[in-house]
Amino acid sequence: MPSTHAYGFTSPTSACTPIEITRRTPGPLDVVFDIQYAGICHSDIHTARGEWGQQRFPLVPGHEIAGIVREVGERVSAYQVGDRVGVGCMVDSCGECDYCLAGREQYCPKTNWTYGSLDWEGNPTQGGYSQSITVTEKFVFRIPDSLPLDQAAPLLCAGVTTYSPLKAWVKPGMKVAIVGLGGLGHVGVQIAAAMGAEVSVLSHTLAKKADGLAFGASDYYATSDPDTFPALRNRFDMILSTVSATDDYSSYLSSLTKTGVLVNVGLPGDSIQLKLPALGPARTLMGSQIGGCAETQEMLDFCGAHGVLPRIETISGEQITEAYDQVVNSAVRYRFVIDTDTLGDRG
Amino acid sequence: MPSTHAYGFTSPTSACTPIEITRRTPGPLDVVFDIQYAGICHSDIHTARGEWGQQRFPLVPGHEIAGIVREVGERVSAYQVGDRVGVGCMVDSCGECDYCLAGREQYCPKTNWTYGSLDWEGNPTQGGYSQSITVTEKFVFRIPDSLPLDQAAPLLCAGVTTYSPLKAWVKPGMKVAIVGLGGLGHVGVQIAAAMGAEVSVLSHTLAKKADGLAFGASDYYATSDPDTFPALRNRFDMILSTVSATDDYSSYLSSLTKTGVLVNVGLPGDSIQLKLPALGPARTLMGSQIGGCAETQEMLDFCGAHGVLPRIETISGEQITEAYDQVVNSAVRYRFVIDTDTLGDRG
Repeated sequence: MPSTHAYGFTSPTSACTPIEITRRTPGPLDVVFDIQYAGICHSDIHTARGEWGQQRFPLVPGHEIAGIVREVGERVSAYQVGDRVGVGCMVDSCGECDYCLAGREQYCPKTNWTYGSLDWEGNPTQGGYSQSITVTEKFVFRIPDSLPLDQAAPLLCAGVTTYSPLKAWVKPGMKVAIVGLGGLGHVGVQIAAAMGAEVSVLSHTLAKKADGLAFGASDYYATSDPDTFPALRNRFDMILSTVSATDDYSSYLSSLTKTGVLVNVGLPGDSIQLKLPALGPARTLMGSQIGGCAETQEMLDFCGAHGVLPRIETISGEQITEAYDQVVNSAVRYRFVIDTDTLGDRG
Repeated sequence: MPSTHAYGFTSPTSACTPIEITRRTPGPLDVVFDIQYAGICHSDIHTARGEWGQQRFPLVPGHEIAGIVREVGERVSAYQVGDRVGVGCMVDSCGECDYCLAGREQYCPKTNWTYGSLDWEGNPTQGGYSQSITVTEKFVFRIPDSLPLDQAAPLLCAGVTTYSPLKAWVKPGMKVAIVGLGGLGHVGVQIAAAMGAEVSVLSHTLAKKADGLAFGASDYYATSDPDTFPALRNRFDMILSTVSATDDYSSYLSSLTKTGVLVNVGLPGDSIQLKLPALGPARTLMGSQIGGCAETQEMLDFCGAHGVLPRIETISGEQITEAYDQVVNSAVRYRFVIDTDTLGDRG
């Protein structure tokens, strides 16, 4: 089986260090591609540090992956050598359940996640902090020429995670609020604006206000200001929360129209005290998780057509460990992307 | 202005006693009809007892109204004298706002509720515990010949309140749970079954199990049994809660599929402790309130076509006061309906 240079973790408390991993021998439906860039998602950190349960080590995270096709299996029809492609959070699913048949592969009970899963042969999947990956055609997506590969990488998770619920709910002219202007939020603002929404940002402070307006927001509110929520009652048709704080749900709900929807794509903790009258008569609170395969391609095409581009800081493999702390401390503007040339000499 | 016999309240603590009320002089778009039956909804009780804020007295409740057209204005096109008709929770709305234009008149900020509102002239609206009512044509609905008027009456609130969210979500073969087998729940079970769902009832005990199965449920679970919720994890595509208890939301949510929806049409109290992981990754918690005008007619036609019939106990005006206590104590099977012949001699 072919091997590739990677950076990964050997325990929940280790640094991110160079390792060699193997990829499977390509099958007839497989696409092998040279990874050029891999984004760092907060999920990578939760997983690597064991905050979402015990993991198999060594672990190579990374599910925001962009690169160039090097080899295709004999039955691959959609891609050829040299194509610009990406992979997100999933590398396979059963293909037969109701979720798969509905194009919602992310809810398939047998989804193979890009890292941390076992593939059909029982081998651990390993992610994008590496120089090569082998993925079945259906879970590979075409990156439009108008999107630079480094900036395209974060779209594979942050992009589709915000695109999917926005696509489901937003109509031109709607008033949409994005909670949190981080890795997800700064993409969500751009997508919502490109969909024709009137976009507001709800952030803890006004520190990133200039950026928020540059991304396409027309208004920016500090949730730490006690005057904010009283002034926003019944304001928004949709609120997309990208944060993990859980203290303000009733305030958010009260900021919706009577039939508005609050979609949570953050990673909230244990429980919230929700005032049910804030929900009524007909508001909606829901979760959403990434998006399906067809939707991921649609998102990339949308971002390519509308110039939606994550703002990134490119780092080397040696900087990953430090970058994790910066993500946890919200000290990244707005997504770290690893240049995989720095992971080792390409063979 | 024409007057009519009615039963109503003179204070939040009074009994329900005979009074005379006036109805407006009919305009060109008005339908005047002789009320034959009026259902008793728990909302009537909350309102009459001041539990939903201060009211104007005297107050005549009743928003589940069925009768026979006696007179129509010169521009009324849909109804003629002798038609079997009903009125629900609303008697008018602005007709111009986004909600009205979308057929969701119940969310119009200017909705005239059937009782307890002020109409366009500033006069208090009075409800269906009376022998006659005058309502603009748009808010009058045709009752199919297959539905007896006494059993049709509760459909105008309990029917559309359950029909609207079921219509929005249910597809044949879906697993649907109805929480609570009361005035709303026993209609919801019938409607969901008629839509082709596989229906379960979640009730505090098994006391009404035989009835629930007769209404069309295939399964019946006691939520007071500690084995119930562990066995129901990820079971239902949709849960429709018709109760006001707020203790089990996380358990209900955990009983949904990954993308299931919990719609609350009950009247919950102040706040709930919601475990957010129970919501994720992609479940939905939402409220819903009655239904719009077109949807109300659609519901009546659906119930007529599928034999959905509330089970009722017919009472006289003099029994209303006692009936209120029985509703509060869940001692009604399943809806009290007032025979308005008992409210006084018809003129």
